[in-house]
Amino acid sequence: MQRRQIDLNCDMGEGFGAYQLGNDDDVIKLVSSVNIACGYHGGDPDVMDHTVAMANKYNVGIGAHPGFPNLLGFGRWNMDIPSKTLTNLIMYQIGALDIFCRKHGVTMQHVKPHGNLNNMADTDTMIATSIVDAVQSINPKLPIYVKPNSELEKVANEKGQPIVLELFADRAYNKDLTLVPRCQVGAVITDPHQVAMNVLKMVTENYITTITGEKIAVEGQTICVHGDTPSAVEMIRVIREKLEENQIMIASSNY
Amino acid sequence: MQRRQIDLNCDMGEGFGAYQLGNDDDVIKLVSSVNIACGYHGGDPDVMDHTVAMANKYNVGIGAHPGFPNLLGFGRWNMDIPSKTLTNLIMYQIGALDIFCRKHGVTMQHVKPHGNLNNMADTDTMIATSIVDAVQSINPKLPIYVKPNSELEKVANEKGQPIVLELFADRAYNKDLTLVPRCQVGAVITDPHQVAMNVLKMVTENYITTITGEKIAVEGQTICVHGDTPSAVEMIRVIREKLEENQIMIASSNY
Amino acid sequence: MQRRQIDLNCDMGEGFGAYQLGNDDDVIKLVSSVNIACGYHGGDPDVMDHTVAMANKYNVGIGAHPGFPNLLGFGRWNMDIPSKTLTNLIMYQIGALDIFCRKHGVTMQHVKPHGNLNNMADTDTMIATSIVDAVQSINPKLPIYVKPNSELEKVANEKGQPIVLELFADRAYNKDLTLVPRCQVGAVITDPHQVAMNVLKMVTENYITTITGEKIAVEGQTICVHGDTPSAVEMIRVIREKLEENQIMIASSNY
Amino acid sequence: MQRRQIDLNCDMGEGFGAYQLGNDDDVIKLVSSVNIACGYHGGDPDVMDHTVAMANKYNVGIGAHPGFPNLLGFGRWNMDIPSKTLTNLIMYQIGALDIFCRKHGVTMQHVKPHGNLNNMADTDTMIATSIVDAVQSINPKLPIYVKPNSELEKVANEKGQPIVLELFADRAYNKDLTLVPRCQVGAVITDPHQVAMNVLKMVTENYITTITGEKIAVEGQTICVHGDTPSAVEMIRVIREKLEENQIMIASSNY
Repeated sequence: MQRRQIDLNCDMGEGFGAYQLGNDDDVIKLVSSVNIACGYHGGDPDVMDHTVAMANKYNVGIGAHPGFPNLLGFGRWNMDIPSKTLTNLIMYQIGALDIFCRKHGVTMQHVKPHGNLNNMADTDTMIATSIVDAVQSINPKLPIYVKPNSELEKVANEKGQPIVLELFADRAYNKDLTLVPRCQVGAVITDPHQVAMNVLKMVTENYITTITGEKIAVEGQTICVHGDTPSAVEMIRVIREKLEENQIMIASSNY
Repeated sequence: MQRRQIDLNCDMGEGFGAYQLGNDDDVIKLVSSVNIACGYHGGDPDVMDHTVAMANKYNVGIGAHPGFPNLLGFGRWNMDIPSKTLTNLIMYQIGALDIFCRKHGVTMQHVKPHGNLNNMADTDTMIATSIVDAVQSINPKLPIYVKPNSELEKVANEKGQPIVLELFADRAYNKDLTLVPRCQVGAVITDPHQVAMNVLKMVTENYITTITGEKIAVEGQTICVHGDTPSAVEMIRVIREKLEENQIMIASSNY
Repeated sequence: MQRRQIDLNCDMGEGFGAYQLGNDDDVIKLVSSVNIACGYHGGDPDVMDHTVAMANKYNVGIGAHPGFPNLLGFGRWNMDIPSKTLTNLIMYQIGALDIFCRKHGVTMQHVKPHGNLNNMADTDTMIATSIVDAVQSINPKLPIYVKPNSELEKVANEKGQPIVLELFADRAYNKDLTLVPRCQVGAVITDPHQVAMNVLKMVTENYITTITGEKIAVEGQTICVHGDTPSAVEMIRVIREKLEENQIMIASSNY
Repeated sequence: MQRRQIDLNCDMGEGFGAYQLGNDDDVIKLVSSVNIACGYHGGDPDVMDHTVAMANKYNVGIGAHPGFPNLLGFGRWNMDIPSKTLTNLIMYQIGALDIFCRKHGVTMQHVKPHGNLNNMADTDTMIATSIVDAVQSINPKLPIYVKPNSELEKVANEKGQPIVLELFADRAYNKDLTLVPRCQVGAVITDPHQVAMNVLKMVTENYITTITGEKIAVEGQTICVHGDTPSAVEMIRVIREKLEENQIMIASSNY
């Protein structure tokens, strides 16, 4: 059956002190869920408080977006952290964000690991386990955004932690549903209309087209978009319009 | 009426990564409440998890011990942080600790500001307000440890946040119940037996003796002891013995 | 005698990791000296290396811009750091920047304290002493940018460390040559043409006009301009044009 | 020909703020070279200043000991940092330490990478290259301590940067001169007398005995000892005595 709604999610609240990043004020009006940085790879308590307040105002689902403890690398450098320590680092971040959710009277909707913490969990069972353990210790019903076929998906399923399958609007896929690495030609799709068309197919026909042209069936429950440049924001608008033209509602309540 | 029990509290969980500090394993068996560092002036997620687990095991009351964001100065350098930012920094730390309390199935008992955050709140209304606002946003029933006559006590009372009056076992007092500054002769009392006798009088007769010999009535609800040196731990033992000899129970349930 | 050249200086290299700040690429072509952040309040080793290389390319004088160890507050929160520690923190930062100067074969021209480290040294003798001691330990001939009448000027003079008197292009002055605090109306002059005219008078007639209209004689040797917003960059252009129209050369070699 | 002197080196200055680590005051009297932490994995400007002063007083060779930017993991977690960034991070640390050498009128003797930065450079050519590039940019004559057969040795030799071959007093070796991983039985030799005898053979007969009993010829120029526990300090004493009994002088001037 064709779905009539989809979740659009975007990273947010990644500024720090005097530093601003992204176009949060514009993006928040265009998506249905946000992943809020928790102070390790980006974000600070003021930004977290402000972003949660804004998400509450626009009725957007709030996710914790824990990352590696590495502001300098913005969480984008692989780190080998002992498993139990990594679990505690993730819990710490989620707990810190949760206090702002409680202040604003909203419930945390999901957890999405950031950057290379997420990427490493594609294939590294120990890291995937650290993430799932952290979330499960906090709330065994709190869903984790996972890539299809990733170790993170597998471990979450094994441990019975709820998941939300995430697809990427502007990234090319391999046959095994891994993302084509950014260093390869064609890894990132830059034409907003092509991206919007791809998203529409993900939602209404439940498949992605690989970089080599095959259709692979996959039922994504949330689509990740980026908001860190003006053109990225424009792309979200185009995606949104395309979905609305096709009577697809942007909403996070489908999982 | 003479009281038959008193709370002894001690700072704890102030190690960081490879660095250890204090004698937590010994001290936890001797006190009834602990103030656990939250990662800003000291402490890290592993230490927090471990310390909360240990406090739970020994049935000791858990307090969040938020400090200035300043590991290098161990939270002991005055910092002028904008009020709303300071509130958010404190909320962040309390939230992070609270997640480990939730994991271990215990309820946070209190909040005690650390080091110069606490000292500045003796006289700085804005800082005192930032602290009270942070705690009140989280839980309007969560008590704050305050020094008698401090701005922190005053602001907490004005805003209706519960307080616990704290006295210091080994510090000399002025008439107005402020602490004699550490730089002055006689500021810190080092003889365990004199300290134990002072504590006994605080508990059973509800007064402190000032550095100039006056008795000032004050009903402390918790007594702060230090555990960062072997001789400090020994002092706690002497205090405990003196209290037990006099049928005073060490317990945090009196407030 | 009327001077025929003046130094224009601007803070630079204040980005950190994924975070960018300011318009360094534009500003560097418009000024004669830059104050490069050293990693504590802003800046990181990549930014430092890049900024030194760029300053070298455009033949612009390089100053170390040490600040408080406080990235979150961007060095703009007062901190009470023990004097000897503060000296070492400043030396550390200058040493780190100097290595990039050595790599690129340039000599550090000056030191300018950043943000509230600088502001506190207006009136706090201990902080002023910490700064001068740090610079003097490194190089007793390395000049420090100082505000006229500040403690920093006084201490540097007493200790025989060379100074460069700095005036601010867009800030209103009190009679005693202190800056009108930013919180007061009129503290910051926003009209580029008025600012340019003020700068011209500072250079050619050696006086500033106070916020209440008096002319106060002061022979500034460098003028601080800001480059953190597009309109700030535009203001520098206007100042430059005004000076060039009047045959004033922008150069740092006058001290 | 039998050598009559050898360098003993030890990591040092790894405390941070309120945190102390190791037994620097004892160890410095027993070794001929020290590797001083530079503030990233451990160490702070006060500790650096103090340790350089102490090394100068005891006439001990000073090495920079740069590590990963990771105080929480004490530089012991692998990190994948882009090559050019890693070079700049290392330069920054060396530059910061060098300023304290300059203050105290001593010349930096060597550079030794810390912890997992060093371990990764055993086999990772890119990391080895980043290290060598950093040191070479600073001073093409500044020697790097390297393990025999490591990538770091190879790259330094290729680029013409001087090296000092380092052996480890208390670690078991494989045939290819790699260290037996700490997780394996027998990896660390704990009997001081066996360690001292091994060191004697390294120095006078120029071989190490592998964990499986083979003798492998290798002419180490410096021997690394540890000083982080009281028993480690005692081990250094035993090594020293054994060497002195055999008329081997402890000195860093042999390379």
